[in-house]
Amino acid sequence: MSSFTIPKTQVAAVVESIGAPIEIKHDQPVKQASELAPGECLVKMEYTGVCHTDLHAKKGDWPAKPNNPLIGGHEGVGIVVAIGEHSERPPVKVGDRVGIKWLANSCLDCEFCRKGFEQNCVKAQLSGYTVDGTFSQYVVSFVHHVTKIPESIDSASAASILCAGVTVYRALKNSNTHIGDFIVLPGAGGGLGHLAVQYAVNMGLRVIAIDTGAEKQKLCLSLGAEKWIDFKQSTDIVKDIKDATGGFGAHAALVTASASAAYEQAVDYLRPTGTLVAVGLPNAPLGANIFWTVFKSINIVGSYVGNRQDAIEAIEIAAAGKVKVHYELKPLNALKDVYEGMEAGKVVGRVVLKCE
Amino acid sequence: MSSFTIPKTQVAAVVESIGAPIEIKHDQPVKQASELAPGECLVKMEYTGVCHTDLHAKKGDWPAKPNNPLIGGHEGVGIVVAIGEHSERPPVKVGDRVGIKWLANSCLDCEFCRKGFEQNCVKAQLSGYTVDGTFSQYVVSFVHHVTKIPESIDSASAASILCAGVTVYRALKNSNTHIGDFIVLPGAGGGLGHLAVQYAVNMGLRVIAIDTGAEKQKLCLSLGAEKWIDFKQSTDIVKDIKDATGGFGAHAALVTASASAAYEQAVDYLRPTGTLVAVGLPNAPLGANIFWTVFKSINIVGSYVGNRQDAIEAIEIAAAGKVKVHYELKPLNALKDVYEGMEAGKVVGRVVLKCE
Amino acid sequence: MSSFTIPKTQVAAVVESIGAPIEIKHDQPVKQASELAPGECLVKMEYTGVCHTDLHAKKGDWPAKPNNPLIGGHEGVGIVVAIGEHSERPPVKVGDRVGIKWLANSCLDCEFCRKGFEQNCVKAQLSGYTVDGTFSQYVVSFVHHVTKIPESIDSASAASILCAGVTVYRALKNSNTHIGDFIVLPGAGGGLGHLAVQYAVNMGLRVIAIDTGAEKQKLCLSLGAEKWIDFKQSTDIVKDIKDATGGFGAHAALVTASASAAYEQAVDYLRPTGTLVAVGLPNAPLGANIFWTVFKSINIVGSYVGNRQDAIEAIEIAAAGKVKVHYELKPLNALKDVYEGMEAGKVVGRVVLKCE
Amino acid sequence: MSSFTIPKTQVAAVVESIGAPIEIKHDQPVKQASELAPGECLVKMEYTGVCHTDLHAKKGDWPAKPNNPLIGGHEGVGIVVAIGEHSERPPVKVGDRVGIKWLANSCLDCEFCRKGFEQNCVKAQLSGYTVDGTFSQYVVSFVHHVTKIPESIDSASAASILCAGVTVYRALKNSNTHIGDFIVLPGAGGGLGHLAVQYAVNMGLRVIAIDTGAEKQKLCLSLGAEKWIDFKQSTDIVKDIKDATGGFGAHAALVTASASAAYEQAVDYLRPTGTLVAVGLPNAPLGANIFWTVFKSINIVGSYVGNRQDAIEAIEIAAAGKVKVHYELKPLNALKDVYEGMEAGKVVGRVVLKCE
Repeated sequence: MSSFTIPKTQVAAVVESIGAPIEIKHDQPVKQASELAPGECLVKMEYTGVCHTDLHAKKGDWPAKPNNPLIGGHEGVGIVVAIGEHSERPPVKVGDRVGIKWLANSCLDCEFCRKGFEQNCVKAQLSGYTVDGTFSQYVVSFVHHVTKIPESIDSASAASILCAGVTVYRALKNSNTHIGDFIVLPGAGGGLGHLAVQYAVNMGLRVIAIDTGAEKQKLCLSLGAEKWIDFKQSTDIVKDIKDATGGFGAHAALVTASASAAYEQAVDYLRPTGTLVAVGLPNAPLGANIFWTVFKSINIVGSYVGNRQDAIEAIEIAAAGKVKVHYELKPLNALKDVYEGMEAGKVVGRVVLKCE
Repeated sequence: MSSFTIPKTQVAAVVESIGAPIEIKHDQPVKQASELAPGECLVKMEYTGVCHTDLHAKKGDWPAKPNNPLIGGHEGVGIVVAIGEHSERPPVKVGDRVGIKWLANSCLDCEFCRKGFEQNCVKAQLSGYTVDGTFSQYVVSFVHHVTKIPESIDSASAASILCAGVTVYRALKNSNTHIGDFIVLPGAGGGLGHLAVQYAVNMGLRVIAIDTGAEKQKLCLSLGAEKWIDFKQSTDIVKDIKDATGGFGAHAALVTASASAAYEQAVDYLRPTGTLVAVGLPNAPLGANIFWTVFKSINIVGSYVGNRQDAIEAIEIAAAGKVKVHYELKPLNALKDVYEGMEAGKVVGRVVLKCE
Repeated sequence: MSSFTIPKTQVAAVVESIGAPIEIKHDQPVKQASELAPGECLVKMEYTGVCHTDLHAKKGDWPAKPNNPLIGGHEGVGIVVAIGEHSERPPVKVGDRVGIKWLANSCLDCEFCRKGFEQNCVKAQLSGYTVDGTFSQYVVSFVHHVTKIPESIDSASAASILCAGVTVYRALKNSNTHIGDFIVLPGAGGGLGHLAVQYAVNMGLRVIAIDTGAEKQKLCLSLGAEKWIDFKQSTDIVKDIKDATGGFGAHAALVTASASAAYEQAVDYLRPTGTLVAVGLPNAPLGANIFWTVFKSINIVGSYVGNRQDAIEAIEIAAAGKVKVHYELKPLNALKDVYEGMEAGKVVGRVVLKCE
Repeated sequence: MSSFTIPKTQVAAVVESIGAPIEIKHDQPVKQASELAPGECLVKMEYTGVCHTDLHAKKGDWPAKPNNPLIGGHEGVGIVVAIGEHSERPPVKVGDRVGIKWLANSCLDCEFCRKGFEQNCVKAQLSGYTVDGTFSQYVVSFVHHVTKIPESIDSASAASILCAGVTVYRALKNSNTHIGDFIVLPGAGGGLGHLAVQYAVNMGLRVIAIDTGAEKQKLCLSLGAEKWIDFKQSTDIVKDIKDATGGFGAHAALVTASASAAYEQAVDYLRPTGTLVAVGLPNAPLGANIFWTVFKSINIVGSYVGNRQDAIEAIEIAAAGKVKVHYELKPLNALKDVYEGMEAGKVVGRVVLKCE
C-alpha cells in the first residue's frame, strides 16, 4: 500500500548499547511496506527535535531501561509512505504529513487508554526508547497514534511541538488554573519553558518567568510574560513571587527541574490551594514539606507528556500562529555534538535536525 | 441575649506556655453575654474529643506557633447559651446544639473563603490553637462557623466527627475516586482511620485497610473493609495491595502518617493516575519519588480539615447512622493522662471527654 | 481462529423493513470465522435483554433510521467463538464470555472517541440498529468493544446490565451528586429505574423513588430507596419532594420519560444548582422553563448510554453482588409477544430471552 | 463612621408601582450613617449602567415580583461614604471605590452560599428589585458584597462590568470549554455580547459571532471574533457554523435570547458533547429537542449572574485592559428615554448614566 519508492537502507543515529556513543550509520535497514504489521505505518522523516530525554535514553540512567541497539528521537515530522495491510480503519493515509511523539503507540483498550491516559497504557511503546525513533530517514510508527500536521505550519517548526509543546500544554491543562491566574514558569527561557509561556499567555494566564540572562529575559517578555525574575540576581525568589502576585503567591507552578529543591521552593511561593505541576523526570525525592503541603491545601500533579487529543490541540494552537518554537536547525549528523553541548549545558533553546 | 445562667468562672484545662504541663484550673473566667463581640457566641460544652493535634498544640512543635496561655481542644459539642449583640443575621440561636471545629472562624470575605477554602482563610482562627478551645465548660465561638448537630445523634458520638470525621470525609472527597475504586487506608483501625473506612464504604469504595493487631482487624472488617493487611505480618505491602487490586494497584490512598516513607511507598502501590491524599501534618519532606510520580501521572493532594459544608455533610451522614465513632469516654480532668498515653502510643481509638 | 464448530445457519428474529412485523427465521446465515474482518468477532449468544429502544428500531420512529432487514437486540451475553484474522491486538480471545451493547463499535480515533465519548463517535455502529443485534444465536461484534463478563455473575443476570445498567450508571455519574445528596428517580420500579435505585444507593445517594403500585413500592423500598411517592396517589409531587428533602428540593433527577412535562416538572422539584439528567430519547421538546432553569442555576445533562469504561464498571459492581436485575426469562421466539406487551404497557420489569 | 457629608435628600429614579412610569424625584431620603444596620454601607454613586433586567423590574413581568416603590439599577460604581456600626470585620472601608451588583447581598451561611452559589442564596437581596438600586445619588448596599474597583479602571467603564461583564464571564466559566474550542455568541454585538467576545478571546476560545449590521460586524471582528455570521443574511446558520468549525459544530454556545427557538437551534449547531449556556431569563420553555440533546450528549447550563469571586475576576481582567465596555454616556434623568429606546429596540450597545 504505497505509491512511494522506499529504499532498502537509510541513514540513522544508532546507540548500540546503554552508554555507547552515537554512531551515524548509513546502512540501516528500512522496513518495506509488505513487512508492516496491521496498525503500523512507515514515515519518511523530514525533521526531528532533540530532547533531554534522548540523552537519558542514550545513557540509560532512568529506572526503566531502553531497548538497544536503539535509534533515539521522539519529536519528529514526516510523510506517511506506507500503511500496514489489514490495518483496522486507519485514520491516516499514505501521503499524510504526520508527527511522531514519545508515546509511539498504546493499546487503546486497557483501563488507562479507556480513561484517556494513553501515556499510562500498560503496553505503551515509546519512540526512541522501546521502539526506534526519529533520528533516522525512515521510521516505523503506528496509524492510531501519529498526529496529523495542519497545513499552516511547516515541518521544522512543528517538530518540537510534538514533545516539548505537548508536555507543557498538557501540564498547563493539569494546573487547575483559569484566566487571570498567576503561573510561575521556572526555566521559562528554555526548550519547554518558552513554549509554556506562550500557551499560558494564550489561555489568559499571568506568567511569572524565572530564568537567567538578558537574552532569555528579552525572549520571555516578548512572548507575553508579565514578570521576569533572574534567579542569579534575585536574593529571595519566594518574596519576589509573592510581591508580584499581591502577596499570596502564585496559583500554579510548572516545574521541570531535576533537583528536589525546586519542588520544596514551589510549595513556599504557591498561594494556598495552589497547584504544583511536575513534568521533569529526575530520579529524586519530592522535597516538598508535608506540613505546608497539607496546611496550604496544595496539589502536586505528576504530568507525563500527553495523549492523542492533547497533541492535536497543541499542534492546532501552534498552527494557528499562537505558539512559535524558537529553534536552531542542524543536520542529523550533528547529533553527537548536540548531546555534548547539552551535557555541557551550552545548548540554548531547542535544536531541530534535518533528517536527510 | 441569653436565657441561660452563665457562671463567672469555670473549669478548664490550661497550658500556660509552650511545652508547659496541662493544668486543670477551676477559676477560669467565662465571657458574659454582654461581652461577646458581634459574630461571637458562647457555647456551654457537653463533650470534646482529643486529637493528636492537641498534643502538638501543647508541645508547640509545629512551624506555626499556638497562643498561650491556651485552652486546647477542637472537636466539641455543646449548647449555644448566648450570642453577641449586633451579630449579622446569625444562623444559629440560643439553645441550639452545635459543634466546634479546628476552624473556629474565618472571614468569609477573602479569596480563599470566597472559593470555599475557608480553612485557608488569611484570618482563620483555630480552636485550641489561636483561640481557646473545647477543653473547658464554656467556650467563645463564632456564629457563622459552629455546626448545627442533628437531633438523631448524641453529643458524645458527634464530637469526634467534627475533626476526625470532617478531615477524613473531606480527604475522601479530594481523592478523585468513585464507586468501585480501591482506596488504601493506612492506620485504618485508628481514630481517623476507622471513620475513613465507614465514609469510604458508604461512597461505594472498596477499602484496603492497613493496620496491625486482631482487634483492629476485626473492627475494620466489620466496618466493611474488603481487604485487611497487617503491616507487622506482611512481607511486601506493595505486592499485597497490587494483588488485591487486580495487579495495577489502588486508585487512591489516604495517608495520615508522620513519616516520609509512607508517602514514598504510596506512590509505589498506587496505580497509574492514582491519587495520594495527605492529611497528616508532619514537618518532614514528602519522600515521593519524582520520576515515578510523573511517569505514573500521580496526584498528591494536601487535604486540610474541611469547610463548613464538609462538616455539615459529615455530621449528617453520621446522624443518619451510617458512620459511628468508636470512642472511650473519660472526664475532662483525665486529659493529662490521655496525653501521656498518646505519647506512649497506648491510646486505642478516640478518647472523648465529658466537659463537666 | 476458532476451536468452536460454527453452523452455517441460525435462528434469529428479523424485521424485514421499517414497521414490518418480527419474524422468527430459522435459516439466517452465520458469518464464518474466515469471513470476519480484522477487529470483528463472532459471538454465540446465550441471553439477551429486551429494551424499549428495540421497539423504536422495529417501528423506525426515531429521527435517525435503522438499517433493514434488521436483527434487533443490544444487551446480550455470549461466548466469543471466532476472531477476525489480522485483528490488531484483540483484548479478548476465543472462549471469553462477553457482553454486547448498543454501541457495537466505534473508531477509537475521532475527537469523540479520543475524549472518551465513544458513544458519540462519528462512525459509531449500533447493535440492532445499524448492524445486526442480539436477537439471534450468533452475532458479529467487535473485539475492542465487547465487554468481558466477570465469573461471579451469570449470563442471564448480566444481560440487562449492558444497556439498562450502563445507561443509568453513566447517568448517575453525570448527575453531579455525591454521598448524601438526594436524587429523584421517576419510574423507579421499571427496567432502568430499579437498577438506578441500586447503583444510587451504593454511591451513598438518598433515593426518592417515584412510580405506582404496591409491588413497585415494595421493590423500591427493599432496594434501599429512602422515600416512595406513588404518582397516582400524590396530589403534589413537587411538594412531596420538597418535604422529603428539607424544603429545598432534590440535588438531581434522572428522567427517562417520553413526555416534555416530566422535564418541566423536574426543574420545579430540583433545588437551586441541581442537575436534571435526561436519558430518555423522545422526539419532543424539553419543556423546562428557561427563566427558572437560569434563575435556579439548573444543569440539564443529556446522557446517552455509556462508553467501554462505564460498561466495565457497571458490570463489575453488579458482579460484586451490589446490583441485581429483576427480570422475567422467556424464549427468543416470545419476542413478538413481548413487543405487544410493551406497546400495551403490560410488561413489568425487564424481559430476558434465551437465545437457543 | 463617616468623614463624608451626607445630604438628607437626593435625586433618584423611582417606580411607584408595577408598571408605573419612571419618575425622577429630587426629594428622596438618604439613609444616614447612624441609621445603617451592621453589614450595611452607604455608597455615593458615580455611574450606573442600564440593563434589560431593569426594564423587566419596571414592568414587573417576571414570575418573581419586585418591591415597589422601587429605585432600579444594579450595575453601578461609587464611593463608600459610611459603614454600619458593629459590622462584622467589614472588608471595605470608608473612601473605597466599589461596585454594586444585581446580587446586593446574600447570607453567606446557607447551603448555596457555602457552596459558592451566593446568587442562589435563599435570602438573596437584589439591587433594583428587592432593595433599592443604583439609579440614584446614594444607595444602601452591603459590605460583604460590594466589589472593590481597581485603580486602573475608571468608574464609567467599570459600571457595566458589574452585571453584563460578570454575567457573561461566569457563563464562559460554565461553558466547559478550554483554549482552542469554538464558542458561538448570538447577539455578539450587543451589551452582553461584545463583552463575551472579549472575555472569550482572552481565554483562548475561537469566537463565532452572530448578530446583524456592518457596525456590529466591524466591532466583533475588531474584538477578535474569528468568524462573523449576519443572521439577516445567512440562509442556514447551522450550516454556516458547522462549516466554520470543521464540520462538527461548536463546542459551546452562550445564549441570551428571549425566544425558545434560539435554544432549539443551538442543539443543532453544537457538536456532540457540546454545552449550551443559557443566560437569558425569558419566561418560556426550552425548545431544545430531547432526542438530540441526549443522543448528542449535550449539556444545558443555566448560568445566573455570578458570585463575589466572579465579579472580582471579571473586573480585574477589565482593569488589566483586556476587556473594554463600549457604552454611551447619558445623565440620570435620561433613563425614561433610554427605556423607551430599549422597548423600541433602538439602543445600540450599553448605556451608562452619570448619577449626579
